[in-house]
Amino acid sequence: MLYSLEAGGKRIRPLLLFATLEAFGKDPASGAEAAAAIEMVHTYSLIHDDLPSMDDDALRRGKPTNHIVYGEATAILAGDALLTHSFRLLADIPEQVADASVKLGLIAGLSDAAGAEGMVGGQTADMQGEGKELSLGELEYIHLNKTGRLLAYSVLAGALLAGADAHTREKLSKFAYHLGLAFQIRDDILDLEGTEEQIGKPVGSDEGNKKSTYPSLLSLDGAREALLEHLAKAKEALAGSGLETSLLEGITDLIGFRNS
Amino acid sequence: MLYSLEAGGKRIRPLLLFATLEAFGKDPASGAEAAAAIEMVHTYSLIHDDLPSMDDDALRRGKPTNHIVYGEATAILAGDALLTHSFRLLADIPEQVADASVKLGLIAGLSDAAGAEGMVGGQTADMQGEGKELSLGELEYIHLNKTGRLLAYSVLAGALLAGADAHTREKLSKFAYHLGLAFQIRDDILDLEGTEEQIGKPVGSDEGNKKSTYPSLLSLDGAREALLEHLAKAKEALAGSGLETSLLEGITDLIGFRNS
Repeated sequence: MLYSLEAGGKRIRPLLLFATLEAFGKDPASGAEAAAAIEMVHTYSLIHDDLPSMDDDALRRGKPTNHIVYGEATAILAGDALLTHSFRLLADIPEQVADASVKLGLIAGLSDAAGAEGMVGGQTADMQGEGKELSLGELEYIHLNKTGRLLAYSVLAGALLAGADAHTREKLSKFAYHLGLAFQIRDDILDLEGTEEQIGKPVGSDEGNKKSTYPSLLSLDGAREALLEHLAKAKEALAGSGLETSLLEGITDLIGFRNS
Repeated sequence: MLYSLEAGGKRIRPLLLFATLEAFGKDPASGAEAAAAIEMVHTYSLIHDDLPSMDDDALRRGKPTNHIVYGEATAILAGDALLTHSFRLLADIPEQVADASVKLGLIAGLSDAAGAEGMVGGQTADMQGEGKELSLGELEYIHLNKTGRLLAYSVLAGALLAGADAHTREKLSKFAYHLGLAFQIRDDILDLEGTEEQIGKPVGSDEGNKKSTYPSLLSLDGAREALLEHLAKAKEALAGSGLETSLLEGITDLIGFRNS
């Protein structure tokens, strides 16, 4: 569990949660438990996705993947335990940070974002789509669920902790939708253009796995254009939120133009 | 997810929860969500335990195991999603059944029982102990965690829903401790004495997997004796609880003398 948690990574989900709290003028530290829970769920999903029966990846964040180091059985169990512990962390948020009903909302939201109709659903569709030419709609379904839902939950969790009203939550949810797609398009572009050193895993693995990607469906130029469009719409949603969103805008650029 | 949930099984954990509610004079129906959550966690653990990299079992409850039917990737994901959904179910218990703080207690308890220091910890120790001769203490550690914790949680969940006081919870927890060990000893005896038709999986698989068992450490007679001792202590704890425990006693006998 610790090996994969401590392997680093971009910590984009915690960053999003903290920046959302900042946007509401709240102390980012109040999101510590929720941020850790989200990072645990993200890490579990990486451990399981890397397994031989899934994406069969040997390298992640520049290090051998969990199952390469500890074997498949332990890797599966480490993922299971990280997922299980994430809910404990949310239940343990101090009362002065969130009352019991907010905590239950965070727990329900994490289950929805990570479960069969969220992240696991997206990964399942991804596995089933391997070796097939997907439509753009199918590709978006996969990414909105596989990656987008947990990214969006990171923003939602911040909003729930800050006690956001429905209008603000809706704007932030629109922001997170476009941010999630931008994130994935950038990922696909990096898989073609990046170096192994930059991205911490072999370049061109999507092509090797015969995965449909934004560049394969839209061409590289088309993917770049779609990326810019989603980044613009993400910022538009932020601008309409009435919040102090400079940090969230910065993260949006970071996600859109990152090299790793 | 449905394939394994609907494969049947003894439903001992829901039964324990309902019988605990009965012991408090509460409506068993108030335990429906918690019972479903527990059965989902139990089912996820069976799906993952049966995987080729774990126990590599092809038959469970008389049916082909999940990965035999759907493949390894889908089996892992089905388990992940069942675990994830179980917490959603607990968060969704109607307010008139349990207030927010009881629900958070149920969620924290399920995470503890199922997690790294509970069920997953037991399964990890079980995998690491394969092919080794274990001490009785090591064997008990494995079973108290791998099987016992979730069985005990089924009783605890009933007690939490019923608003039990600390003394009663302690008696019930002692009951559950001995019941869990009795359950596992009976399992080990059945693996030697049962028929494939009775137990829904191949007989002698422990021996085939070179697993330490109660009969292998204590002899078959010694295991039978230990079984009777734990059953007696379980009933003793019940008798001291001050509750109407006839149903729980019946389940204790069912577990101790079951043939499947």
